[in-house]
Amino acid sequence: MSQTVDILLTNAAVLTMDETYTQYEQGAVAVSGNRIVAVGPEKDITRQYEGKETLDCGGKVLMPGLVNVHTHVPMTLLRGLADDLRLDVWLLGYMMPVEREFVSPEFVRLGTKLAMAEFIRGGITAFADMYYFEEDVAQAVAEAGVRGVCGQTILKFPSPDAPSYEDALEYTRGFIERWKGHPLIVPAIAPHAPYTCTDEILQASAALAAEFDVPLHIHLAETALEVENMVNEHGMPVIPYVKKQHIFDAKVIAAHCVHIDEGEMHTLKQFGAGVAHNPSSNMKLASGIAPVAKMLEVGLNVGIGTDGPASNNDLDMFEEMRLANFLAKGSTGDPTVVPARTTIDMATRMGARAIHLGEVTGSLEPGKRADLILVDLSPLHNAPRFARDPDGRYAQLVYASKSTDVTDVMIEGRWVMRERQLLTLNEAELLAEAQEYARRIDAFLIQREKSVLSKLVAIEGATQEESFEVQAKVAVQDPAAVQAAIQSSAALEILRFRHYREFDTYFHFSDSHHILRYREDEFIDEKGEVSNVRYRLTLIGPASRKQFPSNILLSRSRYLAPATHSLRFYREYFKPERETTIEKDRLRWRVLFKGTEFYINLDEMHAPHIGSYLEVKSRTWSRRDAEVKSELVAELISLLNVDPEKIINQDYLEIVED
Amino acid sequence: MSQTVDILLTNAAVLTMDETYTQYEQGAVAVSGNRIVAVGPEKDITRQYEGKETLDCGGKVLMPGLVNVHTHVPMTLLRGLADDLRLDVWLLGYMMPVEREFVSPEFVRLGTKLAMAEFIRGGITAFADMYYFEEDVAQAVAEAGVRGVCGQTILKFPSPDAPSYEDALEYTRGFIERWKGHPLIVPAIAPHAPYTCTDEILQASAALAAEFDVPLHIHLAETALEVENMVNEHGMPVIPYVKKQHIFDAKVIAAHCVHIDEGEMHTLKQFGAGVAHNPSSNMKLASGIAPVAKMLEVGLNVGIGTDGPASNNDLDMFEEMRLANFLAKGSTGDPTVVPARTTIDMATRMGARAIHLGEVTGSLEPGKRADLILVDLSPLHNAPRFARDPDGRYAQLVYASKSTDVTDVMIEGRWVMRERQLLTLNEAELLAEAQEYARRIDAFLIQREKSVLSKLVAIEGATQEESFEVQAKVAVQDPAAVQAAIQSSAALEILRFRHYREFDTYFHFSDSHHILRYREDEFIDEKGEVSNVRYRLTLIGPASRKQFPSNILLSRSRYLAPATHSLRFYREYFKPERETTIEKDRLRWRVLFKGTEFYINLDEMHAPHIGSYLEVKSRTWSRRDAEVKSELVAELISLLNVDPEKIINQDYLEIVED
Repeated sequence: MSQTVDILLTNAAVLTMDETYTQYEQGAVAVSGNRIVAVGPEKDITRQYEGKETLDCGGKVLMPGLVNVHTHVPMTLLRGLADDLRLDVWLLGYMMPVEREFVSPEFVRLGTKLAMAEFIRGGITAFADMYYFEEDVAQAVAEAGVRGVCGQTILKFPSPDAPSYEDALEYTRGFIERWKGHPLIVPAIAPHAPYTCTDEILQASAALAAEFDVPLHIHLAETALEVENMVNEHGMPVIPYVKKQHIFDAKVIAAHCVHIDEGEMHTLKQFGAGVAHNPSSNMKLASGIAPVAKMLEVGLNVGIGTDGPASNNDLDMFEEMRLANFLAKGSTGDPTVVPARTTIDMATRMGARAIHLGEVTGSLEPGKRADLILVDLSPLHNAPRFARDPDGRYAQLVYASKSTDVTDVMIEGRWVMRERQLLTLNEAELLAEAQEYARRIDAFLIQREKSVLSKLVAIEGATQEESFEVQAKVAVQDPAAVQAAIQSSAALEILRFRHYREFDTYFHFSDSHHILRYREDEFIDEKGEVSNVRYRLTLIGPASRKQFPSNILLSRSRYLAPATHSLRFYREYFKPERETTIEKDRLRWRVLFKGTEFYINLDEMHAPHIGSYLEVKSRTWSRRDAEVKSELVAELISLLNVDPEKIINQDYLEIVED
Repeated sequence: MSQTVDILLTNAAVLTMDETYTQYEQGAVAVSGNRIVAVGPEKDITRQYEGKETLDCGGKVLMPGLVNVHTHVPMTLLRGLADDLRLDVWLLGYMMPVEREFVSPEFVRLGTKLAMAEFIRGGITAFADMYYFEEDVAQAVAEAGVRGVCGQTILKFPSPDAPSYEDALEYTRGFIERWKGHPLIVPAIAPHAPYTCTDEILQASAALAAEFDVPLHIHLAETALEVENMVNEHGMPVIPYVKKQHIFDAKVIAAHCVHIDEGEMHTLKQFGAGVAHNPSSNMKLASGIAPVAKMLEVGLNVGIGTDGPASNNDLDMFEEMRLANFLAKGSTGDPTVVPARTTIDMATRMGARAIHLGEVTGSLEPGKRADLILVDLSPLHNAPRFARDPDGRYAQLVYASKSTDVTDVMIEGRWVMRERQLLTLNEAELLAEAQEYARRIDAFLIQREKSVLSKLVAIEGATQEESFEVQAKVAVQDPAAVQAAIQSSAALEILRFRHYREFDTYFHFSDSHHILRYREDEFIDEKGEVSNVRYRLTLIGPASRKQFPSNILLSRSRYLAPATHSLRFYREYFKPERETTIEKDRLRWRVLFKGTEFYINLDEMHAPHIGSYLEVKSRTWSRRDAEVKSELVAELISLLNVDPEKIINQDYLEIVED
């Protein structure tokens, strides 16, 4: 008496990916409801089971669906937006400004569906995500019929979906309550990373995850800089630090782990954390090569992830498997490490365990959910086929096959692709909607990039300073005498004295009249040591100067912003056509002269070596006031025994460029 | 008046890959005969030219065909034969034995055609090859309508197509004479590598290439070991060495260059050599990461190659581009190096220059041959598309597109694929024939791997030693007394004395009764120093012993071979189930006793520490002789004041394993 099942898959080369890597060259799988009922040689299975529906797999490979252990699926809408950039420029200069402007529940649903279409086409049946509006992600994933661990991002900054982290936590609690127990969706919490969260956020996230027994998904030790900063600030590397914040009270999915040592691996293992290895992203962003061979030796569950499609730029697990394999061999110098079978394991059973779905999916075994794919090895890039080595099949899949060889995909017992036709998503509609978003994002960025000011505002905010400044400059032969005159003059009341070393870099643009100055001010104390450093950006507008008697200038309009990034960052972000650098030693007095405040700078120009200059400046608000002050400036200069006739009407940049 | 051309390609996003990277968003290309006549905006081209045939490209990307700068195309028939092995095991254990058995003109033609089908499907229109029977490769390439630089291999060993290098050179001369000037084929010479050629071969190859002005294709500095050996043997790295052999008299295609320094890069540049970078192969075989960013900075023409499909395992230039890009970023820690546009350049114009076809192909410019492809960016893994950055198109191709997005391919003005249908090759036939080869190769290897002996013969040759040896072993408490007795006995004539330290590793197999012993014999001179080392493999057959009176053994049949590789090599090649190691200090006398030759060993067992033993052995050829000798052995042992009653019938392995 044979048992009736819903679907019988016959005539397949079955890779079960069970603990002993059982294969059936002529195999069959029986499915009922959402579960696998039996797996075995075709002749046994067909004797024991009768299918309401039977599918002859035509000799294709039948294997568990692939598990993509780390991604940000809605970012599919940002694929190809900006490439070949350093992480900070890419993230702060492009991704975050665009996300602030565009990310909404609608954006997230569309991006997710586009990603689900690509997942299904490439044989991915389960994944772990981290993004904003994750409940909308979950909704779209469930509609597409894909299995997802959906992690809601928690940040210490305001994010597109939460003005504060408390709001984000509250949202996450509701999300978990509503979705826990869903057949496809596992809600999760995703504190973004140690450097974007506080201790309090990490602890609260872990507590929430533990309360509901849901996974905690986090970026850990992605770059060497992150580890360096962690050691400098907290005296320990990343894994001990997050352990101290009790994150291992939760089931952790640790994304990246590029820069961890063997001790940290043992900590991860001890607490059952899964590791998400993202080879393409780590290479494309030049983060480094994760020590995967060592992690596997330690016994960690290491899965493979695509990371977000904005840093990859695809969602292709076949490529990701191959790259994970190649990097392990290339970085250890040993071509025998992470062989093909282990690679497929990482992308299926071990990957499922890494995202805490090991009981549910990742292998073809009775009782597990029916998440499976058919891979057609008849296309010529897979030919020929050798049968000698039983591991040859894995090698064929890892080294030769392509995601486009996947023809059929079943998740939770339901077909989501048959013969390369998507059954749960309308691809043409998604593509059209995605292109409309791309058009709007393009327009936004093109508008922004039209002016250096708007690019500056996009990343730093910028405040427009007072528009007018009266300014005079004179070359001086004997600066010591001038200094003595300033310090001894009875007509001057010295309000404050400062000593700086100033390092200025001017960015020039071919398509803008603006000049952007990056200034590093080193404050020199009485012992001649640097007591503090300040970084500022100044956007200097087109010359709108007026010359007063005695060459005294009314200076340009300018915008000021604190420089929170490195010079290198701004160089790559603004892409100046050329640069000029000026270094000087500045003595600066704020003084009262005839009841009016002036700044007196005595500058010794170090690079280029163009001598010493006296500068007298005063802020002004009206044309009439400026005229009065320009006369006072000439008077003040005379007072210091410098000839006001020698006032020059150039700023340092012009002097240097002449 | 518009000019008539053969084919007008309209409505295409044209990437010309000319020197200034001109793009035409709505572009067109005019082709007549085998050449490009015009490239430009569609509205200009359609005004100036009328096509006998016009193809609306439907907005697809129209770009130069990809150039695969280093491969061994017939090895497509060996794809997936053996993976996850070290280079020596892979090459000497699998590739070369199979090549010796199977490579023929027929094999080469079939493998080439299979590769050409994959090339065309993936948009490859030109390539540089190195293999045997290269005239048959050329014939198959020409029939497929692909452009190839076909390099005939020259080796210092006998090869499948030439018993000696002189034969190979003679064959190459004829091949060059017959094919020079062919519109698609450039015949070339390919001395395999410095370590597989002699000085004389390199010099003769360079002279022949220079005589006919054809390229010289060679593997250079692929592994660190190659460089180390070169420095040890010749006191210089690889590039200076080959320069000394005058190879730069020829137009060189230098494959790999993984381990070269900046000085060597300048040498390559000075002589106009092209570099073939093979990222997949270098990673899969763990050779290392070539310093591509530095090479580009130096100004070398660096192309991208797939290497042979037996070490890759595909012929997919889209993957190869992406990997070249990722490795450059990952290895330098700088995500801005080798941006997408440069990557496409390496795969087209620069690649063509690297294989000395720069005048002919690699870009869409009037006068160049019409080698072009259409890439469909409508599949969802390419969506959406951003237009802000003109380099975005290159990024889309490098980071997101797949070889399966190529729909149409034209080479030399002739369509070889239209709408994914191959026009010059019968794919189904090729696949069937390839599978038949795979079946035969499988059978050959399965037969070979049935026995450890045949695996041994496949790589080393092995000689069957005398089948019988009479042998007796006794534990001794006072080895110094036994040594004194040997040296002083009047009955013994000492013919030779040797002192060794012996390191034995025994490989045990679960599926064989054979045991393979790897022995390292250190010869110790009178000063106690190692004067020489010998490595031997001994295959010890199933026990076929007979016990004589006094426990004297007739030993097992055995096969001997010199061990030319490392213990590590044999371990990976033979894959023993387990190993045993034994170390001992051996004093060995060859003596005459009553007119018969015996070996007396006095062994002090170091690891494991199991004491000292006296062994007496003699070779024998007949059962009768063995009986006589076994009596003499007992007599000799008594002579040395050792009790023959204590003779044990075990060899060291058995003693240790007990």
